[in-house]
Order: sequence, then C-alpha cells, then structure tokens
Amino acid sequence: MIRAGIVGGTGYTGVELLRILALHGQVEVAVVTSRSDDGTRVDALYPSLRGSINVSFTKPDVESLATCDVVFFATPNGTAMLMAEQLLVRNVKVIDLSADFRIKDANEWSKWYGMKHACPDLISEAVYGLPEINRAQIVDATLIACPGCYPTAVQLGFLPLIEQGLIETNHLIADVKSGVSGAGRKASVATLMSETGESFKAYAATGHRHLPEIAQGLSLAAGKQVGLTFVPHLVPMIRGIQATLYAQLEGDAATQLQTLYEQRYTHEPFVDVLPAGVHPDTRNVRGSNNCQISVLVPQESDTVVVLSVIDNLVKGAAGQAVQNMNLMFAFDEKQGLETIALYP
Amino acid sequence: MIRAGIVGGTGYTGVELLRILALHGQVEVAVVTSRSDDGTRVDALYPSLRGSINVSFTKPDVESLATCDVVFFATPNGTAMLMAEQLLVRNVKVIDLSADFRIKDANEWSKWYGMKHACPDLISEAVYGLPEINRAQIVDATLIACPGCYPTAVQLGFLPLIEQGLIETNHLIADVKSGVSGAGRKASVATLMSETGESFKAYAATGHRHLPEIAQGLSLAAGKQVGLTFVPHLVPMIRGIQATLYAQLEGDAATQLQTLYEQRYTHEPFVDVLPAGVHPDTRNVRGSNNCQISVLVPQESDTVVVLSVIDNLVKGAAGQAVQNMNLMFAFDEKQGLETIALYP
Amino acid sequence: MIRAGIVGGTGYTGVELLRILALHGQVEVAVVTSRSDDGTRVDALYPSLRGSINVSFTKPDVESLATCDVVFFATPNGTAMLMAEQLLVRNVKVIDLSADFRIKDANEWSKWYGMKHACPDLISEAVYGLPEINRAQIVDATLIACPGCYPTAVQLGFLPLIEQGLIETNHLIADVKSGVSGAGRKASVATLMSETGESFKAYAATGHRHLPEIAQGLSLAAGKQVGLTFVPHLVPMIRGIQATLYAQLEGDAATQLQTLYEQRYTHEPFVDVLPAGVHPDTRNVRGSNNCQISVLVPQESDTVVVLSVIDNLVKGAAGQAVQNMNLMFAFDEKQGLETIALYP
Amino acid sequence: MIRAGIVGGTGYTGVELLRILALHGQVEVAVVTSRSDDGTRVDALYPSLRGSINVSFTKPDVESLATCDVVFFATPNGTAMLMAEQLLVRNVKVIDLSADFRIKDANEWSKWYGMKHACPDLISEAVYGLPEINRAQIVDATLIACPGCYPTAVQLGFLPLIEQGLIETNHLIADVKSGVSGAGRKASVATLMSETGESFKAYAATGHRHLPEIAQGLSLAAGKQVGLTFVPHLVPMIRGIQATLYAQLEGDAATQLQTLYEQRYTHEPFVDVLPAGVHPDTRNVRGSNNCQISVLVPQESDTVVVLSVIDNLVKGAAGQAVQNMNLMFAFDEKQGLETIALYP
Repeated sequence: MIRAGIVGGTGYTGVELLRILALHGQVEVAVVTSRSDDGTRVDALYPSLRGSINVSFTKPDVESLATCDVVFFATPNGTAMLMAEQLLVRNVKVIDLSADFRIKDANEWSKWYGMKHACPDLISEAVYGLPEINRAQIVDATLIACPGCYPTAVQLGFLPLIEQGLIETNHLIADVKSGVSGAGRKASVATLMSETGESFKAYAATGHRHLPEIAQGLSLAAGKQVGLTFVPHLVPMIRGIQATLYAQLEGDAATQLQTLYEQRYTHEPFVDVLPAGVHPDTRNVRGSNNCQISVLVPQESDTVVVLSVIDNLVKGAAGQAVQNMNLMFAFDEKQGLETIALYP
Repeated sequence: MIRAGIVGGTGYTGVELLRILALHGQVEVAVVTSRSDDGTRVDALYPSLRGSINVSFTKPDVESLATCDVVFFATPNGTAMLMAEQLLVRNVKVIDLSADFRIKDANEWSKWYGMKHACPDLISEAVYGLPEINRAQIVDATLIACPGCYPTAVQLGFLPLIEQGLIETNHLIADVKSGVSGAGRKASVATLMSETGESFKAYAATGHRHLPEIAQGLSLAAGKQVGLTFVPHLVPMIRGIQATLYAQLEGDAATQLQTLYEQRYTHEPFVDVLPAGVHPDTRNVRGSNNCQISVLVPQESDTVVVLSVIDNLVKGAAGQAVQNMNLMFAFDEKQGLETIALYP
Repeated sequence: MIRAGIVGGTGYTGVELLRILALHGQVEVAVVTSRSDDGTRVDALYPSLRGSINVSFTKPDVESLATCDVVFFATPNGTAMLMAEQLLVRNVKVIDLSADFRIKDANEWSKWYGMKHACPDLISEAVYGLPEINRAQIVDATLIACPGCYPTAVQLGFLPLIEQGLIETNHLIADVKSGVSGAGRKASVATLMSETGESFKAYAATGHRHLPEIAQGLSLAAGKQVGLTFVPHLVPMIRGIQATLYAQLEGDAATQLQTLYEQRYTHEPFVDVLPAGVHPDTRNVRGSNNCQISVLVPQESDTVVVLSVIDNLVKGAAGQAVQNMNLMFAFDEKQGLETIALYP
Repeated sequence: MIRAGIVGGTGYTGVELLRILALHGQVEVAVVTSRSDDGTRVDALYPSLRGSINVSFTKPDVESLATCDVVFFATPNGTAMLMAEQLLVRNVKVIDLSADFRIKDANEWSKWYGMKHACPDLISEAVYGLPEINRAQIVDATLIACPGCYPTAVQLGFLPLIEQGLIETNHLIADVKSGVSGAGRKASVATLMSETGESFKAYAATGHRHLPEIAQGLSLAAGKQVGLTFVPHLVPMIRGIQATLYAQLEGDAATQLQTLYEQRYTHEPFVDVLPAGVHPDTRNVRGSNNCQISVLVPQESDTVVVLSVIDNLVKGAAGQAVQNMNLMFAFDEKQGLETIALYP
C-alpha cells in the first residue's frame, strides 16, 4: 500500500480520483486538501463516497503532503507549480492534472495561461503522461504532467496517421465536443443547466488553451511543426469527449488504415480500435478509462476521418493520472481501472 | 467460480447484470440468450463490454441453461414462469428479475399483468428477494422473485415506520419518480428522447402494476392490509428512482425517527440513512447498489416525509439480483457490488 | 401603446418578459435596468432577442422608470419593496414578480425571507395577481404581487376542491417538481449542469419559502387555516413545474370531480382541464401561459389526486405578470400570450 | 385566408407546421391526414394544440386535399412523389418537406434513398425551397422541395465563401451536430432517451443522405463540382443543429469575411450574422426560424471556420416551408414566423 495525497479534492477531477483510488487496492488516500472545506468530511460534500472514503479535508500543507508517496494536483492552473518542487525534494512523486507542466516552452505557456511560470526549471523534468507515447519515461518519472482531456482524445486519434507519415500535416482539423464537467465545479452562469442544457455551441474557436498542447504533441510525433485548427464545442451532457478529426491522405493508404490503427494500439490496455464501420459513442466509455476509436475514409475521397471518444474525467483526467501512478509504482497498469462503462 | 446464465440479455437489466457479473470474480457468465440476436457477440451489441464479456447470444434453450448453477431471467413478464420449473428440477437456481413470481395471489397477478399464470404452484415457493426483510429465506431459496424498482425504493422507505407501528396505514402516499431506463429497451414512441427529454409527467396514476406488489409487502410488514396511493412519474434522466413518501404519524415519535431509521438499517450493507437534514439525490447512487434514505417531519406537523433513492437498474434490478445470488451461494453479500456511484 | 419598464432585466423572468412583450403589440419596452450590465445592449446579452428588442440596459433609476406606464420588478426579493412606493406616487403601475408583497403578514414574511420588510404599509394595498381568484381586484389594482411559480401550480390544482369543501384540509400534500430555471440565473455550484443534470432530488423539504404563500392562498379559499405539507423537487430539465396534490375526500364527490373542475375553469383562458384519464405533461405547456390539470381518484379509494402543470417562467412568472398587465390596462386578457407550447 | 392541408400530420415536422400555421393569421388548417390516427382529434394526440387546432386526422385522400390551396407533405420519403402530380393538376400548390424532389438527378436520388423515383418528370419542375438562393423562383413555383435540415445549415454557412470564390472547394468539411428530433417520431430503439441521452456520437460518417443534397447546392453555387466531407453527429438534446464548417482560404480575404457575410445576408429576414467574436448557440434560435452565423479565421491560419445554427424543425423544416408558402402566396415573408427563440 502506498499513501496518496490529493491537492484540490473538491473539483470533479478530485472526486473522480477519490472514486478510483477508493477501490484501487494498493493505495491509501491519506490526505485530501481543500482550503474552503477544511475540516469537512469528504463524504459530507460527496455523499456518493459514504462508506468508501473516511477522511476530512485539510488545508494544503507541505508537511502533511510530504508523508505521502504520491501527490496528485487536481487544482486550478497555477497551483502545482508553486508546490511541486517542495514535494519532489522530499521524494514525493507528483502527478499534476492541471496544465502547469504540459507545455515545454515556458513563454508559450505564459501566453496561453496568462501568468508567469513560477517554476520553469521543472518543466523539462516533467514527463508528459500519455502512456501510449511515453510509457518508458513515465515508469521512471517523478513529476508527471497529465494531458488535458481534449489533447488526450485528439492525440490518440491522430497519432497512427502522423507517426506513419500518411497525412498532410499543415491543415489538421480537430472538431471536438465535450460534456460540461470539463468546465469544472465552480460557480458560474455559463455552465448552469439552464444555460447549457438543451443547447449546443462552439466556444473559444479562435484559440483554446489546449491548442498549443495538442500541437506540441502532434509536432513531436511528426518530427516537424504541424498546422492545426482546433474547435471545441460544449455538449449538453455531463461526461464525455468525442473528437472528429480530419486530414488529407497522402499516398494510397486508405484501405490499410483499419489494420494500421489496430496494430498501433494492439498492446494498449485502454485504447480500443472498433471494428470497421462502427461509430464510437461516448456512453460506451462513460466512467471507464477507455478510448474507443474508429477510422474511415468516406466516399472514396482522400479525406480521412478519425472518431475518438473518452470520458473526459477518466482517460481525460483522473483515470489517466492513476494509469500513470500505476506505471510509476510498478503496479499492474490496469489496477483500479477495470471498471466497465455505465450503460445506459 | 459458478456458472451463470442470463435469459434475455439484450435489455437494460440484462446488460447491467453483465456489467456487474463481468467483474464479480466468482462468476463465469456462461450463457446469454436472445432470440433476436442469436449468434451476435454480446460486445457487438454493447461495445461498453468489449474486453470484458467474451460470449455470443444464443437462443434460449433449457439444455444449455441447465449447465449453469444459476440462471437470471431479465425477460419481459410471462417468460420466466414458462421456464423456471424445468431449470429448478435440474438443480439450477433461478433468479427472476421480472414480475412473474412477485405477487403471491395468482388471480391478483393475472388481473394486473393481463395473462393467466402458467406456473402458479411455484409462486409460494418463490422467495421475495428483498434482503432487508427476507435475508434468511433468500439464503436457502432456489427461486427468487426480485422486487420491482419502485417497490424496492418504497418499501425500504416505509418499512421502519410500519414495522414499529408509528403511522396510520390506511392512507399511505408514495409519490415516486423514475428515470426512463425503467421503461426498458424496446422500440417505442413514448420513450423517445424527443418525447421524454425536457419534460416531466405522472403516468398510470390510476393504477400501476407495482401497486399490488408494494401493498403486499407493506401489508405483510404491517400485519394488516394497508391503503396506498402510488403515483409514478417519469423524469427526464436515464437512471434513478426517488420516492417521496407521506404518512400521518400516530403518537409522538417525531424526534426519534432519525435514530429509528439508523438502527433499522445499521447492519444493512446497501441501505444508508443520511444524516438529519441531508436530502438524498439520485446521482449519489447512480451505478451503485445503495439506497440512501432521509426521514423528516416538516414544520412540526404530524406528517412524516421519507425520501428514498436508488438506481433503478442496480438496487432496483440487477444489483439486487446479484445481492440475492451472493446470499444464495454464500459469497460475501457485497461481492461485485462495491462500486461507487458515478458522480458527476 | 403603453410604455413598460423592467427592473432586473438580466434574470430568466426578465428575459422571458422581454420575449413576451416584444411581440405583445400594445407595449413598448422603454426601460430595462441592470446595474451590472448598464450600457450593454439587451440583445448582446440575449442574442435570442436580436431584431426584437432594441434597447440597452440602464442603471435602475426612478426618474426614467417613472416615464413608464407600468414597471415590472423581475428582481431578487427585497428590491421591489424599496422602489414601489416612489413609482406608485407617480402613477406608475407596479407588477412585482418577486415575493415582496405576496405575504399579507409582514412578520411572517420577515421570518421566511430573512429581512425586515421595508414597506409594510403597501402590503395590504397589493393585489395577489392570480387572475383565477382575483380578476376583479386586479383590474383596479395599481400594485400587483405576482404569485410564485409553485404557488400558482398548487393553488390552481387545489382550488376547486377547497372552494367546494370536498376535502379534509388539515393534511394537504403538495409534492411538486420544478425545472432548474426556477433557481434563477446566478452563478452557483448547486445548479450547474454537472450537479443537476441526470439527477433528481427533493430540497427544502422541511420548509420552503413558497409554503406560507400557498398556505395563505388555500386558507383564504377554505375560510380557515389549512395544514399543508409541501415538498419541492428539482427536475433535470430547464422549464416546467408539475404538482402532484393529494387530499382525503370527505363525502361522496369522487364521480363528480371531472365536471367540477371543468366548470370551475370553463371561462378561464389559461386553465385547461384535460379529459378524464389524460395525464398532463410539462412539455405541453412549455413556453405557453397555460396550466393543464387532471383530477382522479385511484383504485376507488378516498384519496383524490390532482396533477397540475405550468411553465414556471410563463404562467409561473412572466406570462402571469403580462396577464395581470392586460387586465390592469383593459387589453384582451390573452394579448401577447397566445403562443403555443414548443413540442417536442 | 387560404386553406392548407398537411399530409402526415403526426410527425414532428407535421406538428411543428400546425404550431406555426395555427397562429399564422392567413391560413386555415383544413385537412390533416394520418392513416394510423384517422378519426382522432389532432389535439388529443398533441395536447399542446388544445384550443388552437380544431380538426381531426383523416385518411390521406386526394379529393379532400384538392379542396386546399396548398398541401404540405410532412411524410416519410417516397410518399409525396406518389401524390404530388394529382394535386398539382388540380391547381393545388405543393410544398414537400421530404426528400422526394430535392435531388435533380433521379438516379442519384434512387441510389441514396433506396427506391425508384415514381415521378421523375416533376423533379425538374420542383424549386428547391431555400429562399436565400431561390427567392424569385419560389414566388412562381407550384412545387417546392424544401431543403433538409443539415443542408440548410451547411449551405447558408458556406454560400458567401463559395459564391465569392474565396475557398478551395475540393476539400470542404462540414462537421454537423443535430438534436434527436431530426430522427423523427417513430418507434425505435436507437433514439430512446436511454440510448441518446447523456451521450454523443457521429453516425453515417461514410455517407448520409443529405450529402448529395448539400454537394448539389454547393456545386451549383460554385459553378463546378465541389468535394465535401460531411459527418453528422447526434447531440443529446431535442432541437437544434450546429454546423461547423472548415475550408482553406485562397487569397487574402480573411479580414473581409465579417463584412462579406453581413452584406450577403443583410436583406435576409431569417439569416443573422453575429458580431465578430460571438459564437452562435442553438438555444438562441430554438423555436424560431432564424439561422445565426459566425465566421472566423483562427490563429492567423488560412483555414476559415464558419459556425451556423438553426432549429432543425423550424428553419430546417416547418418554418422554412411556411416561409416558402408566404412567398408563393405573396404574404409577408415573415408572416407567422416572428416568434422569438425560447430561452432558456
């Protein structure tokens, strides 16, 4: 058993971590912090956890967090970069679910996140926690930058095409749709049910913070700078992301794409290439750590379409964080993550 | 490991059984039948089960079902009563999730279900599978009549009051609200999303099939015939039942109700009496086998209000069926049922 | 054409007033106030109004409001009572959609609303704007207290029974369900889509602010104090209220209830008694000013059940306010309110 | 007053026609047909229409339909082509909301719709009822092929770019999302609330019937064959379509696009180009005949993104049909269509 701490346990990624870790089997949830709810039992705020989590929120405090083997940051951007170093020097492994260590260029990060980076030296040390590309480095990492939800869905969808050099990479298009839990658990008019229910819209179409993260990942895979148009949308549901990806095929690979995708992910426990002709549906991964993917070329054109779905709070956040933890502590990579999607 | 069969595996209670049994640990799902989908892989119909369930649907057939230790009927009403006897004589335990064996009076059953009972002799043998009242009998049972979803929520809510004789029982009121998955997975205009989304209504207010079942259970607990008004409603959500129960208190028990409820259910693994002042919310039991209950007396009146929530597909169907199976096979009663509700 | 002002035009009742008044035909929307959005075009905040409303928000100001013939208060509780008198003395008619003038007993009001009443002298002058009981007084009124949303649905449902003395009035039960727009348009965690979507709960079961208002109205109709248990619930939809009302019949009126209800409301333009056996559904009044009602006695019991639905923002707020305005200004009572519910 | 008939009045486009025509002012709804509901009052099936529509369904019959001035076909594909000619020869104008006359090439139509066209001679006579491109021909038409819902949203979004020759037209991408009412009101498992609620998916990505219709329209505008990838998606909401359109700009028009769009639609009563930087939201057109559009070029790239929203049942079906009728009968084009979207 290892001891885990969660900084910022009152948001949706925090409570999702608790749901997963409570049944993990090799992890004791030792510390859960929240400034605003200090002293409150966790299961008083989240009655779904009654009987499963038996701790109270405490103020974030390095001393108590340093008693843990691993600390997850489920905090707003800008918090982990203030505390990570103090934990790392005490041999606590850090898994950051926020954006603080995702972008390798600190200036680029500052531009998109509107603040100066407090800890630029650590950025290069941080391993980008997408096991499907970085498994080996994750095993040895002490600081993990967990990918964003959109970047997870988009990168897993595009990677096989880009790695094999099968598409023109200057005009990649990612039309991505997310449930509202992606906006987090904070008081806001924009994400009231009356505002988001029964309606659909694009937002941040001119530039969303996940754009540089996705572009960085795809460019690394391509070995050159890619051009990406990324338009996020808000779906009137709680959980789930669906990415529809478009690119122009170069060469004559259309008929081999199904096999290519199956082979690329054949050993991946959480990426599931669907049979040809089946469309993924977010409900089929709701509550699970799976990514389900389809690839197709409509109407004998030269445009390839990839459909990729995840649960934004699981493979897009807390589940992927636990997958990283499993790798870092040499647990079975699937430990605690073998839940089946809740359908219907 | 025991071998389990599921008759009628294509409905929502069937797929929910599969979700639970796939991770149970002591059960092999050996046979899953469906007339219409004979030969189709189960995970082709339900991609959420990819990687977890590795069988195909077969036609219902006594021979193959008889190779199982237990057979679940997740069928429309009127099917289990045709097959149960043949399985029981071959020493297969039968857990019926339909209504065939719930009502002890075969004539009453016929009146509500619109058909003659094909197997009235077995009715008295069947044990009503509500562990919170019948645990001992369930352990020894070979044929279980699993309670309906509404009856589970209503009986668990009313039982402490009725068992203690604290309320007037001629005018019990159960105002109950259900998500649409209770209507099952069958082609129908009435349960299209366009018909049920963004809308709320009562239905069957003059008499719903679950009325005699609830009245039977409460009358047994009361030791006399109770009078019950039961109005079901359809909520624009998929899973969950919330029962709001009203009764007139007799005597002066108002201040002791919280304690009474806590004591009644203190040893029940799946009934959770919430702290005084907390309202249950269906989201907090979504996907779990829990029933969360509150009891209160508003405004110093003599009307007691009980609030009770379950997931209609879990504690109201498949989860409760597995709880019964665990008891019948001397597994830990909680085996396979320790999932945490999916929040948000 | 009359000139209308709206104080607090940024909430849901405000924008609903704008939707209705924009097409009314005899009303010019002259002033719309909002402290926070002063200077912003109304249709910049509400693009649904582009092309229909051509004004900007201004700071609330008695001088400019006094240029109107009628001023609507679509404000939080506690605002109208500060401004109403200044407008009334300038011969501006005031229609208050908040709770400030609904409760005749100022102390009772203070107890439920948590503040001292700033203008108790006006309370007796205010006419409770439920046309179905107060039409004559409304015609002559200068200050209208528009009923709350729950009180409208519950009173219209109970009135025929109470006026005719057909039920025992000490144990009335109102189990009422509302869409989330009833909670208003303010930043809040509790009404985020992630919190309220796909879930159902009771709230404020020990005492909701609408309880004294309903009890006051029903007691007036009964000619004596009634006893009422009122439990509100939150439905995962945006618009709509459904009230399920229970009472014990005294005497032998069960078979005459359908006729009684039809006669009571035969001349009411916005109360529609459905044919026997039909359940009302909130979708059938969504966006319209109608109340649809059914009455039934299940299973030959002595418990009468009334089902009543409204759109909480229309008949429960803005529509009823305009109905009052029509009466006060001698317009056709239906003017501007003949829209048909948006189905599906 | 003209007399209107509706063939197939029980589907969602039929009932939406009834909602609009009931308040149109110059139209008497004289005949509403339905084979399955012959003899039933329309408002018994649709209680939202109580008090507004006072007719009963009748069997479809040319004699009675021929008493009308105009007949709308709100039928499944394949019905209008069997009856249109008989009505046209009796001087009844025909407005077909189905797909029967949309595709100019009868063989192409047969390929996509899976049946032989029964009336190919009429195809060339039919005017494609998109007023924004065909207003003059519509005025003189006797047979209108109303555009599909997806084609309306996509064409209105792409037209300004294509008409001005500003984009590369071999690789147009239309990623379009629709509420479930687009699937119609027929018994089906796939569109149950339990199947479509809280989930999002692409469907028919390899080829949807609206693809040839959109391609035909855009090719006409371009003066050459365009290449189009069209991926439709199902959104867990009832009404609304959002199209996200992508194309590569040719030349240097990026900064002039806002003006271009505003000018293109400046005289269009139902197309509203939003201010730069505002994203359209389907809720802002729900229940109205408006199309709201934004155009943008993200991140100084050469990819133009157009966002276009409509209510699929109004501008995408019944509202556009009435707009066509208004033009054909020289009514004000906006008559009966000036409703404001229902927000929230």
